[in-house]
Amino acid sequence: MQQEINFLTFSTLDLEAVRRFYRDGLDWTPLLDVPGEIIFFQIAPRMTLGFFDSAKFAEDLGDDVPAELHSASARGITLAHNVSDRGDVGVVMEAMVAAGGRVLKPATDSAFGGTFHGHVMDPNGIIWEIAHNPGWQVDAAGVVSFS
Amino acid sequence: MQQEINFLTFSTLDLEAVRRFYRDGLDWTPLLDVPGEIIFFQIAPRMTLGFFDSAKFAEDLGDDVPAELHSASARGITLAHNVSDRGDVGVVMEAMVAAGGRVLKPATDSAFGGTFHGHVMDPNGIIWEIAHNPGWQVDAAGVVSFS
Repeated sequence: MQQEINFLTFSTLDLEAVRRFYRDGLDWTPLLDVPGEIIFFQIAPRMTLGFFDSAKFAEDLGDDVPAELHSASARGITLAHNVSDRGDVGVVMEAMVAAGGRVLKPATDSAFGGTFHGHVMDPNGIIWEIAHNPGWQVDAAGVVSFS
Repeated sequence: MQQEINFLTFSTLDLEAVRRFYRDGLDWTPLLDVPGEIIFFQIAPRMTLGFFDSAKFAEDLGDDVPAELHSASARGITLAHNVSDRGDVGVVMEAMVAAGGRVLKPATDSAFGGTFHGHVMDPNGIIWEIAHNPGWQVDAAGVVSFS
């Protein structure tokens, strides 16, 4: 199995909130937006973030999959967005708040990894970490390394 | 805010199971492996999948974040891995089962999106969708489109 993810998909209770936050608030461009069903945003080369209406998400998984596995809940997971400068952490967090996000943890030095970071929750409860991570490097081909 | 995710991080109850499944079973190469703390795998250009020990994940989020937001639980989320041929769906699913995964839904035509797919759960409860998705296209620059 190749070491690759192509879709990260969240079961979502409020697709309109996704539109307001990501499209209208953060000015992201949907790759595909099917009303009442799903919205996709490309968030890395070859990779897409999807918000799937919770009832449709359950239907897609099928009746044999236990309900607790497809109920919308984003606990125990974070999506991190790195910024190139320590001062940009607060700037991006403020933009997310202006778009309808809620600060969970103000920007601070992190407990792990030597980053400066803060956490903002999106309207569906998904936790974003905004981080300045001096040890994180990406070469021209997109290959990540840590120093 | 740029339309980009750099880290997808799961709170994880069993880091050893991550090693056995992804590294030993699926032959993935860790980008960084800190015993008792975190394991990273690069899964797209500029993007990394992390499994973070659940106690450390909670510590990283901090005391002010409610416990229900950092408890390890991957419900309501899928990671999808696309394969180029319909017949490869079962092949990859079998490889995941041999590595310690559990089939949630055998390969079948999907309810949405015109794919042929099946679902396998990893040892920490994370649901993978293995899919042949004829409408999904990627150009040389990694830009995704749907047809």
